[in-house]
Amino acid sequence: MILMGIRSSTLRPLTETNGRAFLLMMTATKGATTRHAVLERATQLASRVGLGGLTIGSLADELELSKSGLFGHFRSKEALQIQVLDHAAARFVESVVRPALREPRGEPRMRALFERWLDWGRSSPMPGGCLFVAAATELDDRPGPVRDHLQQLQRDWLGVIATSFRKGIEEGHFLADADPEQFAHDLYGVMLSYHHAHRLMREAKAEPRARRAFEALLSAARRRP
Amino acid sequence: MILMGIRSSTLRPLTETNGRAFLLMMTATKGATTRHAVLERATQLASRVGLGGLTIGSLADELELSKSGLFGHFRSKEALQIQVLDHAAARFVESVVRPALREPRGEPRMRALFERWLDWGRSSPMPGGCLFVAAATELDDRPGPVRDHLQQLQRDWLGVIATSFRKGIEEGHFLADADPEQFAHDLYGVMLSYHHAHRLMREAKAEPRARRAFEALLSAARRRP
Repeated sequence: MILMGIRSSTLRPLTETNGRAFLLMMTATKGATTRHAVLERATQLASRVGLGGLTIGSLADELELSKSGLFGHFRSKEALQIQVLDHAAARFVESVVRPALREPRGEPRMRALFERWLDWGRSSPMPGGCLFVAAATELDDRPGPVRDHLQQLQRDWLGVIATSFRKGIEEGHFLADADPEQFAHDLYGVMLSYHHAHRLMREAKAEPRARRAFEALLSAARRRP
Repeated sequence: MILMGIRSSTLRPLTETNGRAFLLMMTATKGATTRHAVLERATQLASRVGLGGLTIGSLADELELSKSGLFGHFRSKEALQIQVLDHAAARFVESVVRPALREPRGEPRMRALFERWLDWGRSSPMPGGCLFVAAATELDDRPGPVRDHLQQLQRDWLGVIATSFRKGIEEGHFLADADPEQFAHDLYGVMLSYHHAHRLMREAKAEPRARRAFEALLSAARRRP
Protein backbone atom coordinates (compact mmCIF):
# COMPACT_ATOMS: atom_id res chain seq x y z
CA MET A 1 0.00 0.00 0.00
CA ILE A 2 2.74 2.45 0.98
CA LEU A 3 4.84 1.58 -2.08
CA MET A 4 1.81 1.96 -4.41
CA GLY A 5 1.05 5.40 -2.95
CA ILE A 6 4.59 6.64 -3.59
CA ARG A 7 4.59 5.40 -7.19
CA SER A 8 1.29 6.98 -8.23
CA SER A 9 2.40 10.32 -6.72
CA THR A 10 5.72 10.36 -8.54
CA LEU A 11 3.92 9.90 -11.88
CA ARG A 12 2.16 13.27 -11.55
CA PRO A 13 3.96 16.63 -11.70
CA LEU A 14 4.03 18.37 -8.29
CA THR A 15 1.75 21.37 -7.86
CA GLU A 16 1.79 23.34 -4.64
CA THR A 17 -1.22 21.40 -3.31
CA ASN A 18 -0.34 17.85 -4.23
CA GLY A 19 3.31 18.66 -3.43
CA ARG A 20 2.39 19.41 0.18
CA ALA A 21 0.17 16.32 0.32
CA PHE A 22 3.06 14.28 -1.05
CA LEU A 23 5.46 15.61 1.57
CA LEU A 24 2.94 14.94 4.33
CA MET A 25 2.45 11.43 2.99
CA MET A 26 6.20 10.85 2.77
CA THR A 27 6.56 11.97 6.38
CA ALA A 28 3.77 9.65 7.44
CA THR A 29 5.31 6.86 5.37
CA LYS A 30 8.74 7.46 6.85
CA GLY A 31 7.15 7.49 10.31
CA ALA A 32 5.37 4.20 9.68
CA THR A 33 8.51 2.62 8.21
CA THR A 34 10.66 3.84 11.08
CA ARG A 35 8.10 2.64 13.61
CA HIS A 36 8.00 -0.78 11.92
CA ALA A 37 11.80 -1.01 11.86
CA VAL A 38 12.03 0.06 15.51
CA LEU A 39 9.43 -2.50 16.56
CA GLU A 40 11.24 -5.19 14.58
CA ARG A 41 14.48 -4.49 16.44
CA ALA A 42 12.62 -4.19 19.73
CA THR A 43 11.09 -7.63 19.15
CA GLN A 44 14.53 -9.11 18.49
CA LEU A 45 15.86 -7.48 21.64
CA ALA A 46 12.92 -8.71 23.73
CA SER A 47 13.40 -12.25 22.47
CA ARG A 48 16.99 -12.10 23.79
CA VAL A 49 16.65 -10.20 27.08
CA GLY A 50 13.02 -10.94 27.91
CA LEU A 51 10.07 -8.61 27.57
CA GLY A 52 10.76 -7.23 31.07
CA GLY A 53 14.29 -6.29 30.01
CA LEU A 54 12.88 -4.24 27.13
CA THR A 55 12.77 -0.63 28.28
CA ILE A 56 12.91 2.62 26.34
CA GLY A 57 16.46 3.00 27.69
CA SER A 58 17.69 -0.47 26.64
CA LEU A 59 16.09 -0.05 23.20
CA ALA A 60 17.69 3.39 22.76
CA ASP A 61 21.11 1.84 23.55
CA GLU A 62 20.49 -1.00 21.10
CA LEU A 63 19.42 1.34 18.28
CA GLU A 64 21.86 4.13 19.18
CA LEU A 65 18.93 6.54 19.17
CA SER A 66 18.07 9.20 21.72
CA LYS A 67 15.95 8.06 24.63
CA SER A 68 13.77 11.17 24.37
CA GLY A 69 13.01 10.49 20.68
CA LEU A 70 11.90 6.93 21.49
CA PHE A 71 9.96 8.19 24.48
CA GLY A 72 8.05 10.46 22.07
CA HIS A 73 7.08 7.37 20.07
CA PHE A 74 6.15 5.02 22.90
CA ARG A 75 5.46 7.14 26.04
CA SER A 76 6.10 4.30 28.54
CA LYS A 77 7.83 0.96 28.95
CA GLU A 78 4.44 -0.76 29.17
CA ALA A 79 3.22 0.86 25.92
CA LEU A 80 6.44 -0.24 24.19
CA GLN A 81 6.08 -3.81 25.50
CA ILE A 82 2.43 -3.98 24.40
CA GLN A 83 3.31 -2.71 20.91
CA VAL A 84 6.09 -5.29 20.66
CA LEU A 85 3.61 -8.04 21.58
CA ASP A 86 1.23 -6.72 18.90
CA HIS A 87 4.04 -6.53 16.36
CA ALA A 88 5.00 -10.15 17.04
CA ALA A 89 1.33 -11.19 16.96
CA ALA A 90 0.83 -9.51 13.56
CA ARG A 91 3.84 -11.46 12.23
CA PHE A 92 2.44 -14.66 13.72
CA VAL A 93 -0.90 -14.07 11.97
CA GLU A 94 0.91 -13.44 8.65
CA SER A 95 3.24 -16.43 8.94
CA VAL A 96 1.05 -19.01 10.66
CA VAL A 97 -2.66 -18.22 10.89
CA ARG A 98 -3.55 -16.59 7.56
CA PRO A 99 -1.83 -19.15 5.28
CA ALA A 100 -3.24 -22.06 7.31
CA LEU A 101 -6.79 -20.67 7.11
CA ARG A 102 -6.49 -20.86 3.30
CA GLU A 103 -6.22 -24.67 3.57
CA PRO A 104 -9.38 -26.81 3.44
CA ARG A 105 -11.21 -27.09 6.77
CA GLY A 106 -10.58 -30.01 9.10
CA GLU A 107 -7.45 -32.11 9.15
CA PRO A 108 -5.60 -30.29 6.30
CA ARG A 109 -6.05 -26.95 8.07
CA MET A 110 -5.00 -28.40 11.44
CA ARG A 111 -1.86 -29.86 9.83
CA ALA A 112 -1.07 -26.50 8.23
CA LEU A 113 -1.46 -24.73 11.59
CA PHE A 114 0.89 -27.23 13.21
CA GLU A 115 3.52 -27.14 10.42
CA ARG A 116 3.60 -23.36 10.25
CA TRP A 117 3.70 -23.09 14.03
CA LEU A 118 6.76 -25.40 14.02
CA ASP A 119 8.35 -23.15 11.36
CA TRP A 120 7.56 -20.00 13.34
CA GLY A 121 10.37 -20.50 15.86
CA ARG A 122 12.86 -20.79 13.01
CA SER A 123 11.68 -18.12 10.60
CA SER A 124 10.57 -15.40 12.97
CA PRO A 125 12.99 -12.59 13.74
CA MET A 126 13.54 -13.95 17.22
CA PRO A 127 17.11 -14.96 17.91
CA GLY A 128 16.14 -15.82 21.49
CA GLY A 129 13.22 -18.12 20.57
CA CYS A 130 9.49 -17.50 20.50
CA LEU A 131 8.76 -14.29 22.36
CA PHE A 132 5.37 -15.54 23.55
CA VAL A 133 6.77 -18.66 25.25
CA ALA A 134 9.39 -16.65 27.13
CA ALA A 135 6.96 -13.84 27.99
CA ALA A 136 4.43 -16.35 29.37
CA THR A 137 6.70 -17.56 32.18
CA GLU A 138 8.16 -14.10 32.70
CA LEU A 139 4.85 -12.27 33.10
CA ASP A 140 2.63 -14.90 34.70
CA ASP A 141 3.22 -13.44 38.17
CA ARG A 142 3.39 -9.77 37.13
CA PRO A 143 -0.17 -8.43 37.06
CA GLY A 144 -0.78 -5.40 34.86
CA PRO A 145 -1.68 -4.27 31.36
CA VAL A 146 1.20 -6.12 29.64
CA ARG A 147 0.27 -9.45 31.17
CA ASP A 148 -3.42 -8.86 30.40
CA HIS A 149 -2.52 -8.13 26.80
CA LEU A 150 -0.39 -11.25 26.46
CA GLN A 151 -3.17 -13.30 28.05
CA GLN A 152 -5.66 -11.95 25.49
CA LEU A 153 -3.34 -12.71 22.55
CA GLN A 154 -2.84 -16.26 23.83
CA ARG A 155 -6.59 -16.65 24.36
CA ASP A 156 -7.15 -15.56 20.75
CA TRP A 157 -4.64 -18.08 19.45
CA LEU A 158 -6.04 -20.95 21.56
CA GLY A 159 -9.43 -19.86 20.20
CA VAL A 160 -8.22 -20.15 16.58
CA ILE A 161 -7.04 -23.72 17.25
CA ALA A 162 -10.31 -24.69 18.99
CA THR A 163 -12.42 -23.16 16.19
CA SER A 164 -10.38 -24.96 13.54
CA PHE A 165 -10.90 -28.20 15.44
CA ARG A 166 -14.64 -27.50 15.68
CA LYS A 167 -14.81 -27.08 11.89
CA GLY A 168 -13.00 -30.41 11.63
CA ILE A 169 -15.83 -32.00 13.62
CA GLU A 170 -18.38 -30.38 11.26
CA GLU A 171 -16.44 -31.78 8.30
CA GLY A 172 -16.67 -35.24 9.85
CA HIS A 173 -12.89 -35.54 10.28
CA PHE A 174 -12.86 -35.47 14.07
CA LEU A 175 -15.00 -37.25 16.67
CA ALA A 176 -18.27 -35.45 17.39
CA ASP A 177 -17.76 -35.72 21.16
CA ALA A 178 -14.14 -34.54 21.14
CA ASP A 179 -13.44 -31.38 23.15
CA PRO A 180 -11.99 -28.56 20.98
CA GLU A 181 -10.64 -26.62 23.98
CA GLN A 182 -8.93 -29.75 25.29
CA PHE A 183 -7.39 -30.28 21.83
CA ALA A 184 -6.08 -26.69 21.80
CA HIS A 185 -4.66 -27.16 25.33
CA ASP A 186 -2.97 -30.42 24.31
CA LEU A 187 -1.56 -29.01 21.08
CA TYR A 188 -0.10 -26.12 23.07
CA GLY A 189 1.66 -28.71 25.23
CA VAL A 190 3.11 -30.40 22.14
CA MET A 191 4.58 -27.06 21.02
CA LEU A 192 5.88 -26.11 24.49
CA SER A 193 7.61 -29.46 24.85
CA TYR A 194 9.11 -29.03 21.36
CA HIS A 195 10.36 -25.56 22.33
CA HIS A 196 11.92 -26.93 25.53
CA ALA A 197 13.55 -29.91 23.80
CA HIS A 198 14.78 -27.89 20.83
CA ARG A 199 15.97 -24.72 22.53
CA LEU A 200 17.11 -25.65 26.04
CA MET A 201 18.00 -29.30 25.60
CA ARG A 202 19.38 -28.94 22.03
CA GLU A 203 17.75 -32.35 21.50
CA ALA A 204 18.29 -33.63 17.94
CA LYS A 205 15.00 -35.56 18.11
CA ALA A 206 12.93 -32.55 19.21
CA GLU A 207 11.15 -32.20 15.88
CA PRO A 208 10.43 -35.91 15.18
CA ARG A 209 9.11 -36.20 18.75
CA ALA A 210 6.85 -33.17 18.25
CA ARG A 211 5.54 -34.73 15.02
CA ARG A 212 4.88 -38.04 16.74
CA ALA A 213 3.04 -36.27 19.54
CA PHE A 214 0.93 -34.35 17.02
CA GLU A 215 0.08 -37.51 15.05
CA ALA A 216 -0.94 -39.26 18.29
CA LEU A 217 -3.20 -36.31 19.13
CA LEU A 218 -4.80 -36.32 15.67
CA SER A 219 -5.15 -40.08 15.68
CA ALA A 220 -7.01 -40.01 19.03
CA ALA A 221 -9.30 -37.23 17.73
CA ARG A 222 -10.00 -38.76 14.32
CA ARG A 223 -13.38 -40.22 13.52
CA ARG A 224 -13.14 -43.92 12.75
CA PRO A 225 -14.34 -44.60 9.18
CA MET B 1 20.83 -35.33 60.96
CA ILE B 2 21.79 -31.88 62.25
CA LEU B 3 19.14 -31.96 64.97
CA MET B 4 20.15 -35.49 66.05
CA GLY B 5 23.82 -34.40 66.31
CA ILE B 6 22.95 -31.52 68.62
CA ARG B 7 20.82 -33.68 70.90
CA SER B 8 23.36 -36.45 71.38
CA SER B 9 26.08 -33.88 72.19
CA THR B 10 24.01 -32.10 74.79
CA LEU B 11 23.51 -35.38 76.66
CA ARG B 12 27.21 -35.72 77.45
CA PRO B 13 29.14 -33.44 79.82
CA LEU B 14 31.59 -31.21 77.96
CA THR B 15 35.28 -32.04 78.28
CA GLU B 16 37.88 -29.78 76.73
CA THR B 17 38.10 -32.05 73.69
CA ASN B 18 34.47 -32.77 72.98
CA GLY B 19 33.66 -29.19 74.00
CA ARG B 20 35.80 -27.82 71.19
CA ALA B 21 34.34 -30.40 68.81
CA PHE B 22 30.86 -29.33 69.86
CA LEU B 23 31.62 -25.67 69.26
CA LEU B 24 33.10 -26.48 65.88
CA MET B 25 30.04 -28.54 65.06
CA MET B 26 27.71 -25.80 66.22
CA THR B 27 29.52 -23.33 63.98
CA ALA B 28 29.30 -25.73 61.06
CA THR B 29 25.64 -26.38 61.89
CA LYS B 30 24.90 -22.68 62.09
CA GLY B 31 26.72 -22.23 58.77
CA ALA B 32 24.73 -25.01 57.15
CA THR B 33 21.44 -23.70 58.57
CA THR B 34 22.23 -20.16 57.44
CA ARG B 35 23.26 -21.39 54.01
CA HIS B 36 20.03 -23.40 53.73
CA ALA B 37 17.93 -20.40 54.82
CA VAL B 38 19.74 -18.10 52.40
CA LEU B 39 19.28 -20.54 49.51
CA GLU B 40 15.59 -20.91 50.37
CA ARG B 41 15.08 -17.14 50.16
CA ALA B 42 17.24 -16.96 47.03
CA THR B 43 15.03 -19.61 45.39
CA GLN B 44 11.90 -17.62 46.24
CA LEU B 45 13.50 -14.49 44.84
CA ALA B 46 14.59 -16.26 41.64
CA SER B 47 11.09 -17.62 41.10
CA ARG B 48 9.80 -14.02 41.15
CA VAL B 49 12.49 -12.09 39.27
CA GLY B 50 13.96 -14.87 37.15
CA LEU B 51 17.25 -16.66 37.69
CA GLY B 52 19.06 -13.97 35.68
CA GLY B 53 17.74 -11.31 38.05
CA LEU B 54 19.24 -13.18 40.99
CA THR B 55 22.58 -11.53 41.77
CA ILE B 56 24.58 -11.29 44.97
CA GLY B 57 23.48 -7.64 45.11
CA SER B 58 19.75 -8.30 44.66
CA LEU B 59 19.89 -11.12 47.22
CA ALA B 60 21.75 -8.89 49.72
CA ASP B 61 19.01 -6.25 49.32
CA GLU B 62 16.28 -8.88 49.78
CA LEU B 63 17.88 -10.34 52.92
CA GLU B 64 19.17 -7.02 54.26
CA LEU B 65 22.60 -8.61 54.57
CA SER B 66 25.96 -7.21 53.50
CA LYS B 67 26.97 -7.88 49.93
CA SER B 68 30.50 -8.76 51.00
CA GLY B 69 29.24 -11.40 53.46
CA LEU B 70 27.16 -13.06 50.75
CA PHE B 71 30.04 -12.77 48.32
CA GLY B 72 32.14 -14.74 50.83
CA HIS B 73 29.50 -17.51 50.69
CA PHE B 74 28.90 -17.64 46.95
CA ARG B 75 31.91 -16.01 45.19
CA SER B 76 30.03 -15.22 41.95
CA LYS B 77 26.56 -14.71 40.49
CA GLU B 78 26.91 -17.92 38.48
CA ALA B 79 27.89 -19.94 41.57
CA LEU B 80 24.86 -18.52 43.43
CA GLN B 81 22.53 -19.36 40.52
CA ILE B 82 23.89 -22.90 40.24
CA GLN B 83 23.46 -23.46 44.00
CA VAL B 84 19.89 -22.18 43.78
CA LEU B 85 19.18 -24.64 40.97
CA ASP B 86 20.66 -27.44 43.10
CA HIS B 87 18.65 -26.32 46.12
CA ALA B 88 15.43 -26.39 44.10
CA ALA B 89 16.40 -29.75 42.56
CA ALA B 90 17.01 -31.25 46.02
CA ARG B 91 13.54 -30.07 47.06
CA PHE B 92 12.07 -31.55 43.88
CA VAL B 93 13.72 -34.90 44.63
CA GLU B 94 12.36 -34.83 48.20
CA SER B 95 8.81 -33.78 47.19
CA VAL B 96 8.33 -35.59 43.90
CA VAL B 97 10.91 -38.21 42.98
CA ARG B 98 11.71 -39.99 46.25
CA PRO B 99 8.09 -40.56 47.41
CA ALA B 100 7.03 -41.67 43.92
CA LEU B 101 9.88 -44.19 43.69
CA ARG B 102 8.45 -45.85 46.83
CA GLU B 103 5.30 -46.76 44.86
CA PRO B 104 5.12 -50.09 42.99
CA ARG B 105 6.81 -50.05 39.57
CA GLY B 106 4.81 -49.34 36.42
CA GLU B 107 1.53 -47.49 36.30
CA PRO B 108 1.25 -46.78 40.08
CA ARG B 109 4.71 -45.19 40.10
CA MET B 110 4.00 -43.19 36.95
CA ARG B 111 0.76 -41.89 38.49
CA ALA B 112 2.61 -40.93 41.66
CA LEU B 113 5.24 -39.04 39.64
CA PHE B 114 2.49 -37.16 37.81
CA GLU B 115 0.43 -36.35 40.91
CA ARG B 116 3.40 -35.13 42.90
CA TRP B 117 4.68 -33.13 39.94
CA LEU B 118 1.27 -31.41 39.75
CA ASP B 119 1.51 -30.67 43.49
CA TRP B 120 5.06 -29.33 43.16
CA GLY B 121 3.98 -26.01 41.68
CA ARG B 122 1.64 -25.43 44.62
CA SER B 123 3.67 -26.68 47.56
CA SER B 124 7.15 -25.57 46.57
CA PRO B 125 8.46 -22.31 48.01
CA MET B 126 8.10 -20.61 44.64
CA PRO B 127 5.70 -17.70 44.64
CA GLY B 128 6.56 -17.05 40.98
CA GLY B 129 5.86 -20.60 39.77
CA CYS B 130 8.22 -23.47 39.04
CA LEU B 131 11.75 -22.12 38.84
CA PHE B 132 12.79 -24.70 36.24
CA VAL B 133 10.04 -23.77 33.75
CA ALA B 134 10.92 -20.08 33.95
CA ALA B 135 14.68 -20.71 33.88
CA ALA B 136 14.33 -22.92 30.78
CA THR B 137 13.03 -20.11 28.54
CA GLU B 138 15.24 -17.55 30.23
CA LEU B 139 18.53 -19.44 29.81
CA ASP B 140 17.98 -21.32 26.56
CA ASP B 141 19.90 -18.70 24.59
CA ARG B 142 22.48 -17.85 27.26
CA PRO B 143 25.34 -20.33 26.91
CA GLY B 144 27.46 -20.89 30.01
CA PRO B 145 27.80 -22.96 33.17
CA VAL B 146 24.34 -22.07 34.55
CA ARG B 147 22.55 -23.17 31.38
CA ASP B 148 24.67 -26.34 31.22
CA HIS B 149 23.75 -27.11 34.82
CA LEU B 150 20.03 -26.57 34.21
CA GLN B 151 20.24 -28.74 31.09
CA GLN B 152 21.83 -31.54 33.11
CA LEU B 153 19.18 -31.33 35.86
CA GLN B 154 16.41 -31.46 33.23
CA ARG B 155 18.14 -34.37 31.50
CA ASP B 156 18.26 -36.22 34.84
CA TRP B 157 14.55 -35.64 35.41
CA LEU B 158 13.54 -36.71 31.89
CA GLY B 159 15.75 -39.75 32.55
CA VAL B 160 13.84 -40.61 35.74
CA ILE B 161 10.54 -40.50 33.81
CA ALA B 162 11.91 -42.62 30.94
CA THR B 163 13.40 -45.19 33.36
CA SER B 164 10.12 -45.40 35.28
CA PHE B 165 8.32 -45.98 31.99
CA ARG B 166 10.84 -48.68 31.03
CA LYS B 167 10.15 -50.49 34.29
CA GLY B 168 6.46 -50.26 33.44
CA ILE B 169 7.19 -52.10 30.19
CA GLU B 170 9.07 -54.79 32.16
CA GLU B 171 6.09 -55.09 34.50
CA GLY B 172 3.85 -55.67 31.46
CA HIS B 173 1.84 -52.49 32.10
CA PHE B 174 3.00 -50.59 29.02
CA LEU B 175 3.40 -51.66 25.39
CA ALA B 176 6.73 -53.38 24.70
CA ASP B 177 7.38 -51.25 21.61
CA ALA B 178 6.49 -47.92 23.26
CA ASP B 179 9.29 -45.36 23.34
CA PRO B 180 10.21 -44.31 26.94
CA GLU B 181 11.99 -41.10 25.80
CA GLN B 182 8.95 -40.11 23.72
CA PHE B 183 6.73 -40.71 26.76
CA ALA B 184 8.98 -38.49 28.91
CA HIS B 185 8.93 -35.79 26.20
CA ASP B 186 5.12 -35.99 25.96
CA LEU B 187 4.61 -35.93 29.73
CA TYR B 188 6.81 -32.85 29.90
CA GLY B 189 4.46 -31.22 27.39
CA VAL B 190 1.44 -32.07 29.56
CA MET B 191 3.09 -30.33 32.51
CA LEU B 192 4.23 -27.28 30.52
CA SER B 193 0.75 -26.81 29.11
CA TYR B 194 -0.69 -27.13 32.63
CA HIS B 195 1.78 -24.51 33.88
CA HIS B 196 0.83 -22.14 31.04
CA ALA B 197 -2.93 -22.63 31.51
CA HIS B 198 -2.78 -22.41 35.29
CA ARG B 199 -0.30 -19.58 35.78
CA LEU B 200 -0.59 -17.27 32.78
CA MET B 201 -4.15 -17.95 31.63
CA ARG B 202 -5.61 -18.45 35.16
CA GLU B 203 -7.69 -21.14 33.47
CA ALA B 204 -10.05 -22.84 35.93
CA LYS B 205 -9.93 -26.06 33.90
CA ALA B 206 -6.11 -26.22 33.84
CA GLU B 207 -5.92 -29.16 36.23
CA PRO B 208 -8.76 -31.30 34.80
CA ARG B 209 -7.28 -30.74 31.32
CA ALA B 210 -3.83 -31.83 32.52
CA ARG B 211 -5.40 -34.95 34.06
CA ARG B 212 -7.25 -35.77 30.84
CA ALA B 213 -4.04 -35.31 28.83
CA PHE B 214 -2.17 -37.62 31.23
CA GLU B 215 -4.91 -40.29 31.07
CA ALA B 216 -4.83 -40.15 27.24
CA LEU B 217 -1.06 -40.60 27.29
CA LEU B 218 -1.29 -43.57 29.69
CA SER B 219 -4.16 -45.08 27.74
CA ALA B 220 -2.18 -44.95 24.47
CA ALA B 221 0.86 -46.52 26.20
CA ARG B 222 -1.04 -49.23 28.07
CA ARG B 223 -0.75 -52.86 27.04
CA ARG B 224 -4.10 -54.20 25.94
CA PRO B 225 -5.12 -57.14 28.17
